[in-house]
Amino acid sequence: MAQALTVAVLVGSLRKASFTRKVAEALTKLSPEGFSYKHVGIGQLPLYNQDLDDEGSPPEAWTAFRETIRACDAVLFVTPEYNRSVPGGLKNALDVGSRPYGKSAWNRKPCAIVSVTPGAMGGFGANHHLRQSLVFLDMPMLNQPEAYIGHASDLVDDEFNVKNEGTRAFLKGFMEAFGRWTTTLVRARDAAA
Amino acid sequence: MAQALTVAVLVGSLRKASFTRKVAEALTKLSPEGFSYKHVGIGQLPLYNQDLDDEGSPPEAWTAFRETIRACDAVLFVTPEYNRSVPGGLKNALDVGSRPYGKSAWNRKPCAIVSVTPGAMGGFGANHHLRQSLVFLDMPMLNQPEAYIGHASDLVDDEFNVKNEGTRAFLKGFMEAFGRWTTTLVRARDAAA
Amino acid sequence: MAQALTVAVLVGSLRKASFTRKVAEALTKLSPEGFSYKHVGIGQLPLYNQDLDDEGSPPEAWTAFRETIRACDAVLFVTPEYNRSVPGGLKNALDVGSRPYGKSAWNRKPCAIVSVTPGAMGGFGANHHLRQSLVFLDMPMLNQPEAYIGHASDLVDDEFNVKNEGTRAFLKGFMEAFGRWTTTLVRARDAAA
Amino acid sequence: MAQALTVAVLVGSLRKASFTRKVAEALTKLSPEGFSYKHVGIGQLPLYNQDLDDEGSPPEAWTAFRETIRACDAVLFVTPEYNRSVPGGLKNALDVGSRPYGKSAWNRKPCAIVSVTPGAMGGFGANHHLRQSLVFLDMPMLNQPEAYIGHASDLVDDEFNVKNEGTRAFLKGFMEAFGRWTTTLVRARDAAA
Repeated sequence: MAQALTVAVLVGSLRKASFTRKVAEALTKLSPEGFSYKHVGIGQLPLYNQDLDDEGSPPEAWTAFRETIRACDAVLFVTPEYNRSVPGGLKNALDVGSRPYGKSAWNRKPCAIVSVTPGAMGGFGANHHLRQSLVFLDMPMLNQPEAYIGHASDLVDDEFNVKNEGTRAFLKGFMEAFGRWTTTLVRARDAAA
Repeated sequence: MAQALTVAVLVGSLRKASFTRKVAEALTKLSPEGFSYKHVGIGQLPLYNQDLDDEGSPPEAWTAFRETIRACDAVLFVTPEYNRSVPGGLKNALDVGSRPYGKSAWNRKPCAIVSVTPGAMGGFGANHHLRQSLVFLDMPMLNQPEAYIGHASDLVDDEFNVKNEGTRAFLKGFMEAFGRWTTTLVRARDAAA
Repeated sequence: MAQALTVAVLVGSLRKASFTRKVAEALTKLSPEGFSYKHVGIGQLPLYNQDLDDEGSPPEAWTAFRETIRACDAVLFVTPEYNRSVPGGLKNALDVGSRPYGKSAWNRKPCAIVSVTPGAMGGFGANHHLRQSLVFLDMPMLNQPEAYIGHASDLVDDEFNVKNEGTRAFLKGFMEAFGRWTTTLVRARDAAA
Repeated sequence: MAQALTVAVLVGSLRKASFTRKVAEALTKLSPEGFSYKHVGIGQLPLYNQDLDDEGSPPEAWTAFRETIRACDAVLFVTPEYNRSVPGGLKNALDVGSRPYGKSAWNRKPCAIVSVTPGAMGGFGANHHLRQSLVFLDMPMLNQPEAYIGHASDLVDDEFNVKNEGTRAFLKGFMEAFGRWTTTLVRARDAAA
């Protein structure tokens, strides 16, 4: 039997009771077989400052984060929208993982994005701003289904089950599509190696 | 004589020898009369986490930053591009200043954006991602001239003079346009009050 | 009594029974006093091809469109979203009006954007892609309220009244804000002239 | 020997002497073996209007365009930037090909984007606006190398050779990466079928 592929899960909100985090937990419960999920924190990362890398003394939190991402096969981003864009904390995590120059931890890892909001619009602004960065970071992104999850404040229960049946089926289909996408790209990577 | 309008200057890079910071200094030297500039740091701001506001104990650095921005008449953003978007640290400063909900410090302050890169492209991605957030924050933005400053690593000398004559004239015109824009909007605000 | 300011209304859909067009009609009915609205068609415009301008024989439809826009004081864009962006026909109208180089008909005209969709998300992608072009065209844009009008297929009746009371009040407030914005910018333009 | 994969080439400019078109010709000359290129015109397409599809009488030009795209394995977009975004004519071609609803001709075709400008910035705005639409159209996009081709007015000679050696090598590498990307995705599609 093939080894499970490891997927890093990054959550864009730092709140303890974040409903974005609950959606992230719910997503991993809906995964097909063959994938293991690792929640990777971003709240402990000092703001990126290139001086610290140049001086050869990057913060320990940066180094640990980079190694964790590097060890994963794929990445799942689950994020709220702050001011019509990616939360500063999540963007900072992208920046930290992308450096030092030429040693990006993100390189070529397949990924998918779920944006999550309490209102109706589902975080379109955060979703697509994140995509622009991921082009540069060379992370093949799942296109469809796009996942703009609105009305999310009461979507997931305390056992991380999606209350709404339609949304549950949608998110299950999303995770299956992400699984196929990841498998396709990881196989192509391995065949080329 | 009318009182000078106060402009907060935010620099998107945290490096000590940042050439973005040098461009920011050069810009303020090229300002028309009637404006005073206040450099406002962003590197000291803990990542935004709504829990800290909800618990009534926001970090002191957040509170001081919000008060500083609130006391200014306008804002000048000078930023590099990280991974085709706004640096996480600058986006975090936007997020911190925008909260608590309904008490944004940015509200209605006229602003302008200068993006700065060592390469040729001048930070288009950062420039326009920032604009998307500023629509939401209701900050009237200077449209023209757009300022995408490429080849910036050796543009400004140690006394903050722009070495290249063409660029110096461009940036001087930019600051004059920003001055007119700020004056127009502040007058309209005062007339409505 | 001051002369009414003239606002060009551009609708991004070409369908006869377009609900976007109905929203546009409803918006003009909700306008404050002092503005007159002129619906300007875009469906008759041949695709932009610079050769026709360079040869000195632009299509009559281009010339008429440019003159019509040039004679207005402000512009209201009301548009659906096609493939997460501005409909090709509306983007073509922007392109036609922006040329020949240096003679843009759009120059410095205050504007506002209403995006309209049958679904929940309200055309965020079209709304902000349009804004990126309008920065270049130097059209001061209304920031707030942003207008993402979802569930629009049955929003407006045949006399162009908004059926939903909450949305009606929102759109009325939008038109008042647009009126104030236009007045501020036109006065500043006249004072500078 | 495997059959060549067919790649549709769409050029965003309609000018006869378009240097964007020359870059497109140069790109196909730099292709690796195993691909054939078909230039597909967009200037003949009437502006999209859903009524014509709904009435069952779409223009012949639409139908022919849709069939041509549908018969290809992949798509190469080569485009200038108009007003910081995709030219209206190219966006119209996307819209025409995407309809009628549920019958998009673009569906799942791998693609790549080259943006081309006479100035320094290389069409970043057009490049990424196009990407936002291609997510929705479910076209897997080549991430790297990104291709922002500035200073393009005198880049390609009349036999469609790239004059500048560095750019020639870059574009050759681009076409090789696009070839690998297309092959990977087409194989995955065939294996799933």
